[in-house]
Amino acid sequence: MSLYPSLEDMKVDQLATAQYRYESQFAPLAVSPAAVSPPTAPPSYPLNPTEVPVLVGKRGGSLYPALSDFMGLDLSPQALAELAPEYALAIPQSTAVAVPAAPSGPLAGMVAPLSGQSLGLQRAQVTHGIRQLTLCKDASGKVGIRVQDVSKGIFVCLVMKGSPAALAGLRFGDQILQINGTTVAGFTKDQVHALFRKSAVNGISVVVRDRPFERTVTLHKDSVGHIGFQFKNGKIIGLVKDSSAARNGLLTEHHLLEVNGQNVVGIKDKDITAIIEEGGSIITVTVIPSFIYDHMINKMATSLIKGSMDHSIPDV
Amino acid sequence: MSLYPSLEDMKVDQLATAQYRYESQFAPLAVSPAAVSPPTAPPSYPLNPTEVPVLVGKRGGSLYPALSDFMGLDLSPQALAELAPEYALAIPQSTAVAVPAAPSGPLAGMVAPLSGQSLGLQRAQVTHGIRQLTLCKDASGKVGIRVQDVSKGIFVCLVMKGSPAALAGLRFGDQILQINGTTVAGFTKDQVHALFRKSAVNGISVVVRDRPFERTVTLHKDSVGHIGFQFKNGKIIGLVKDSSAARNGLLTEHHLLEVNGQNVVGIKDKDITAIIEEGGSIITVTVIPSFIYDHMINKMATSLIKGSMDHSIPDV
Repeated sequence: MSLYPSLEDMKVDQLATAQYRYESQFAPLAVSPAAVSPPTAPPSYPLNPTEVPVLVGKRGGSLYPALSDFMGLDLSPQALAELAPEYALAIPQSTAVAVPAAPSGPLAGMVAPLSGQSLGLQRAQVTHGIRQLTLCKDASGKVGIRVQDVSKGIFVCLVMKGSPAALAGLRFGDQILQINGTTVAGFTKDQVHALFRKSAVNGISVVVRDRPFERTVTLHKDSVGHIGFQFKNGKIIGLVKDSSAARNGLLTEHHLLEVNGQNVVGIKDKDITAIIEEGGSIITVTVIPSFIYDHMINKMATSLIKGSMDHSIPDV
Repeated sequence: MSLYPSLEDMKVDQLATAQYRYESQFAPLAVSPAAVSPPTAPPSYPLNPTEVPVLVGKRGGSLYPALSDFMGLDLSPQALAELAPEYALAIPQSTAVAVPAAPSGPLAGMVAPLSGQSLGLQRAQVTHGIRQLTLCKDASGKVGIRVQDVSKGIFVCLVMKGSPAALAGLRFGDQILQINGTTVAGFTKDQVHALFRKSAVNGISVVVRDRPFERTVTLHKDSVGHIGFQFKNGKIIGLVKDSSAARNGLLTEHHLLEVNGQNVVGIKDKDITAIIEEGGSIITVTVIPSFIYDHMINKMATSLIKGSMDHSIPDV
């Protein structure tokens, strides 16, 4: 069975599959049979190495089907150019959700997967994997992060804007595993800060695990532009009945950390609302349980969080 | 930069890359130049649609390189049969870690990626994606699950062994989003249990999100078979200094839910230890913060958890 980034994606896929099956039952196919898989087979979403990040679920199927893999049809650029030239140009950009054009032929009524190619979804992807990066110190001798120890682990709780850490792609919630080869499990935050102070100006090697406590939820705006949750000081406090947030299982008692991959820690609620409003029809929010958030934040001065946190939009 | 499932994978990859670069600098290559990528390029791990689940990280590179994708070398079965016939049979099974055979030629000293093809890693994969499944009731009219409401969400906290829910692949910690089209956000657990009771015997459609609170950590046994953490009643209470658990950032204050994808909730500590001992050299543990675990478990009778929980090994 397939995995989808949001419930809306699943519904649209089911709708499209059913409609395609119905149409192919009655209408003769205009495309060559070789290009179409048997309509009774579930969509298989083969992996496509040239596409942007694709997640494959353990329980079969891919999490984020690319537009060209949709519905078991061969939608390679070549096939598209032949069958539906009006789509052929739209695909390589792969950042916008395809808007259904005028229906024609057996591909009529086909819908692009809603979230699959959303830029916010790509930016916000939490992998929980391990990577290595190299930091340096800036002119004032600072790397630009503050950490907090949580349950014997060291977590990044502040990334200064414009600092070497921000440029290297460290984010709020990243877990630091090693600094210059020293495993920091069980260290206090002061020991870690001291390690950074003592290190050389250049070539500080850091191994991090990608935001272990965080996860993303992808939401779809309704016809009036709402995604369906209330928040106060960045904390989700309520869900709107039958909204996209309720359907997709967003939870209260969580803090908003990112909107479409952009850090919003320390940003005023009305500015977060503006970011959501300007974020397009698909919004991916990154959340963390509030009790962990509170533990990571409570020792830091509010002015530091509001004034220094890096809020830039990450590269994909 | 590449993402790795464990720190050991990263180190082995760096070691192998450095060694390969060193060797290719001095020794003339015996394999055809076309089959070898430029040694200065980082390993790219192209996606391979015929392989088992492959995770691609947002920050570039693939999370779980397949053996055949290793180090930018063309290790297709054809190339293997030609160059290193002693490996050719071992690859299609892809469940065991390749043991270095006698070194010969330019492939000497090459190490297979440690965790990439581990069966436990595949079984334990947490995707946080959404899927739909169809349940029925057994002879006694039961679906076979208990749920708990956490922060306006409904979470599976008991899957009875041999029940329809177990057969459908539901797991501890799955979040139920819809039952027969009804969104259950904000429902109490009693309302959800009532919904299941009222539903028909067959064709109960359920939409779930894959274990939102959980994540996996992949560990490697040391030379004496230890992975480096202590636990009591399933809760991780301590890390061994410089062990694989410490290196990979396992945290205390978490409960063990799965070992290599097999549910261990309600299993005695000494039996969990036995499962770990028999689990091969690579162990993937699935953990959940203890405060959420306690909330999900505290209303249930211990006998129910110990006696009824499904502990079968999931299919991949």
